[in-house]
Amino acid sequence: MKKIKIGLLGFGTVGQGVWKILNSNMDEIISKCGYEIEIKKILVKDINKKRCVDVPKEILTTNSDDIFYDEEIKIIVELIGGAHPAKEYIIKAAECKKHIVTANKLVVASFADEIFKAVNENNVMIYYEASVGGGIPIIKGINESLTANKIKEITGIVNGTTNYILTKMTDEGLEFEEALKQAQNLGYAEADPTSDVEGFDAVYKLAIMASLSFNTSVDINSIYREGIGRIKAVDIEYAKRFGYVIKLLAIAKEEDNLELRVHPAMVEKNHPIANVGDSFNAIFIKGNAVGDLLLCGRGAGDLPTGSAVVSDIISIIRNNFDVPYNFNYEVNSSKMPIKQSKEFISKYYIRLDVKDQAGVLGQIANIFGQHNISILSVTQDVFAEHKVNLVFVTHDAKYGNIVDSLEKIKTLNSVNGIENVIRIYEFN
Amino acid sequence: MKKIKIGLLGFGTVGQGVWKILNSNMDEIISKCGYEIEIKKILVKDINKKRCVDVPKEILTTNSDDIFYDEEIKIIVELIGGAHPAKEYIIKAAECKKHIVTANKLVVASFADEIFKAVNENNVMIYYEASVGGGIPIIKGINESLTANKIKEITGIVNGTTNYILTKMTDEGLEFEEALKQAQNLGYAEADPTSDVEGFDAVYKLAIMASLSFNTSVDINSIYREGIGRIKAVDIEYAKRFGYVIKLLAIAKEEDNLELRVHPAMVEKNHPIANVGDSFNAIFIKGNAVGDLLLCGRGAGDLPTGSAVVSDIISIIRNNFDVPYNFNYEVNSSKMPIKQSKEFISKYYIRLDVKDQAGVLGQIANIFGQHNISILSVTQDVFAEHKVNLVFVTHDAKYGNIVDSLEKIKTLNSVNGIENVIRIYEFN
Ligand SMILES: NC(=O)c1ccc[n+]([C@@H]2O[C@H](COP(=O)([O-])OP(=O)(O)OC[C@H]3O[C@@H](n4cnc5c(N)ncnc54)[C@H](OP(=O)(O)O)[C@@H]3O)[C@@H](O)[C@H]2O)c1
Ligand SMILES: NC(=O)c1ccc[n+]([C@@H]2O[C@H](COP(=O)([O-])OP(=O)(O)OC[C@H]3O[C@@H](n4cnc5c(N)ncnc54)[C@H](OP(=O)(O)O)[C@@H]3O)[C@@H](O)[C@H]2O)c1
Repeated sequence: MKKIKIGLLGFGTVGQGVWKILNSNMDEIISKCGYEIEIKKILVKDINKKRCVDVPKEILTTNSDDIFYDEEIKIIVELIGGAHPAKEYIIKAAECKKHIVTANKLVVASFADEIFKAVNENNVMIYYEASVGGGIPIIKGINESLTANKIKEITGIVNGTTNYILTKMTDEGLEFEEALKQAQNLGYAEADPTSDVEGFDAVYKLAIMASLSFNTSVDINSIYREGIGRIKAVDIEYAKRFGYVIKLLAIAKEEDNLELRVHPAMVEKNHPIANVGDSFNAIFIKGNAVGDLLLCGRGAGDLPTGSAVVSDIISIIRNNFDVPYNFNYEVNSSKMPIKQSKEFISKYYIRLDVKDQAGVLGQIANIFGQHNISILSVTQDVFAEHKVNLVFVTHDAKYGNIVDSLEKIKTLNSVNGIENVIRIYEFN
Repeated sequence: MKKIKIGLLGFGTVGQGVWKILNSNMDEIISKCGYEIEIKKILVKDINKKRCVDVPKEILTTNSDDIFYDEEIKIIVELIGGAHPAKEYIIKAAECKKHIVTANKLVVASFADEIFKAVNENNVMIYYEASVGGGIPIIKGINESLTANKIKEITGIVNGTTNYILTKMTDEGLEFEEALKQAQNLGYAEADPTSDVEGFDAVYKLAIMASLSFNTSVDINSIYREGIGRIKAVDIEYAKRFGYVIKLLAIAKEEDNLELRVHPAMVEKNHPIANVGDSFNAIFIKGNAVGDLLLCGRGAGDLPTGSAVVSDIISIIRNNFDVPYNFNYEVNSSKMPIKQSKEFISKYYIRLDVKDQAGVLGQIANIFGQHNISILSVTQDVFAEHKVNLVFVTHDAKYGNIVDSLEKIKTLNSVNGIENVIRIYEFN
């Protein structure tokens, strides 16, 4: 049997997932690529750390040169995470003429141009299916299956932690803090949940999907971002009443210019994406030929993510890893203009805490009217003495107008506070 | 700009879809493969037929040799449909050293081994993404993205016509015949709807998916098949009451041996697949690494199907169409053993028309008991004087036992008839 040797950088959740898959599925893998895949060396920080799999000690190393300068190693798999030294390692791997597989969304989203340049110059391949949507074949989907399309939109639930939290809140009526704690206990959320909960993780993934779909370079700092920390059980209750489910969406669509945004949104409860619960991910794509496409699956975890990593390794082998690669990764110097957040148009759910007194509804409705915002429905619930939840659902409105009107509404004597503002997202 | 010339066999719905996509999306296509794609010749039956697109007359021909023996044509796209001469044309294309793209599920399902042999011997490539699920990237999904997995199950809604009919019945309470007529008026169903309605189309698609997923040769005649013609509005009503939606499922799963079946089934209304309505398709895959994956999209239509065909053409170009192809298509001489239908295990919905008299429930329950079938629920509704709908939902039971027990129940004096038997399918 022909054999190919690879090196891993990092042996955490995903690295050990790759190890497990290579151990259990080698027959299938050989039938798919004609090679046995052997992990020759693994870079870690701490050789003596206890691992979930039995790995011979001599395979582990803390010296990256053992991998970069090993002539036998053809493919390097970066599973360290974080920006540095992951980025430098990827570029060094290219310089050492090794093909690269990575699961690192932060690095691909932040340094794509630099990395693709190094990869092109050295005639090697890079694959990064695992960086978005775990085991969901979204990168190959865009790059290899939707090639006949102008892609008009790509919108998804791309963060499993927040989807788990929102599902718990929806199914069990929990508040955010309780649901987060449960997610942490189960290992779905990290001790510092900022990257997931505040939407940064989704921003990286959106940047990768959007740059491939729209063939443009996306600056992660240009992506509008809101986390889920402000969602309350009561908002979820109202969403249900109105026929919606709240999801953290990452949205990219072309309308005049490119609209990029990550924020919680109410989606119609009958849309297939609304029923993607738990820690699952789902990505919706609209192409001008294929129409609407939806891909759902496990967005994280050792085996689903490992599945994508190993299939990338197999793709490299099938593409004939021994000859210099002749495909140019697009280095996008040009950028599509990005739509300003004040131009975002959608329906809005607006929940106010107001005093129980005559005239308040009229005052507020007037202000909305002055800002070109028309109201689809108003719901009023007394939730304590003299305190009233006043919930507006608007027709399509510009975010800039929403912000301006709320600035004024906030100053009204009868208004105790703007409790929440959540977009309603309609797939169309 | 480098140019590649292709020939089409057939210029109906899909052929014209391919034409439209090449016309509207050529910039995207060039950016994806570096070549302009030109349709040099198109084989049709009737040159003078009116087409939906403006095609220069000199491109059309009724002589297939104009395509097979044109040295400039590198890729032949078979879009004629039917078994013959489509199969012979595909083999002849290979012999003429042309790469092949086809959307023909009947041919791929029926003659895969013969076709792959010809393709291997002539070092050409064949792609057939459009043969299953229209624009959904299921073939590339299995062949290129899930390569690290042992696939355990692949189950889907793969026929858009029947899904449209069942959705109409569900949403509007129509009977089958009315819904079928509407589908025919809209062009979703053919004048002779047998292939769709009786499940043959789904059988072909299941054979293709199963042979790739389980690396085995599947005889289409070994696939258990039931159509949707016996589903009544009242069954859909009961399904709703019990929390289910009825779908025509194509199921392949490995459990000891290979279980292959196409039949209507009740699925839980909260499963994402239950909300895939209209003429959409959805395919669920379970891999031992990736876990659960669901792909949904348009399973038919000129542009969605054309999207898959054109992306296959692009794949051939990217794989370097000028050099002999070195990948061997698996010709499966060995077959996995197929599970007998009497061994199929599932919950069953059984609707009986019985006389309104004492003791009938006891008699029936006894017979089920004698056949090892335990009852989950019984519902009784009087629907006319002395006529009662008696609906059983069973726990998991063997189909053989269900058949045997119904044979006996049928003979009871108090039973007017077995009205319907529908499986309840649980994704797990
Ligand atoms: N976890 C998931 O489900 C998932 C899903 C999709 C994508 N990803 C991505 O996959 C990558 C890996 O994630 P993970 O969850 O596997 O991370 P992890 O569990 O934290 O593992 C990181 C590994 O890298 C090693 N490492 C870290 N810094 C290093 C350094 N400077 N030098 C040498 N070794 C170093 C660690 O060594 P020690 O073991 O010795 O500490 C550890 O083995 C990340 O980019 C992540 O975003 C993860
Ligand atoms: N329609 C869909 O949405 C769809 C979706 C997925 C897959 N498919 C598959 O795609 C294939 C094509 O389907 P379609 O709907 O495009 O079929 P179609 O509309 O019936 O078109 C068939 C074309 O083939 C030509 N043709 C038929 N027999 C011929 C022969 N013996 N010699 C020369 N030309 C012949 C016809 O010529 P004339 O025009 O002169 O009559 C016509 O242009 C089928 O295999 C089908 O299963 C279709």
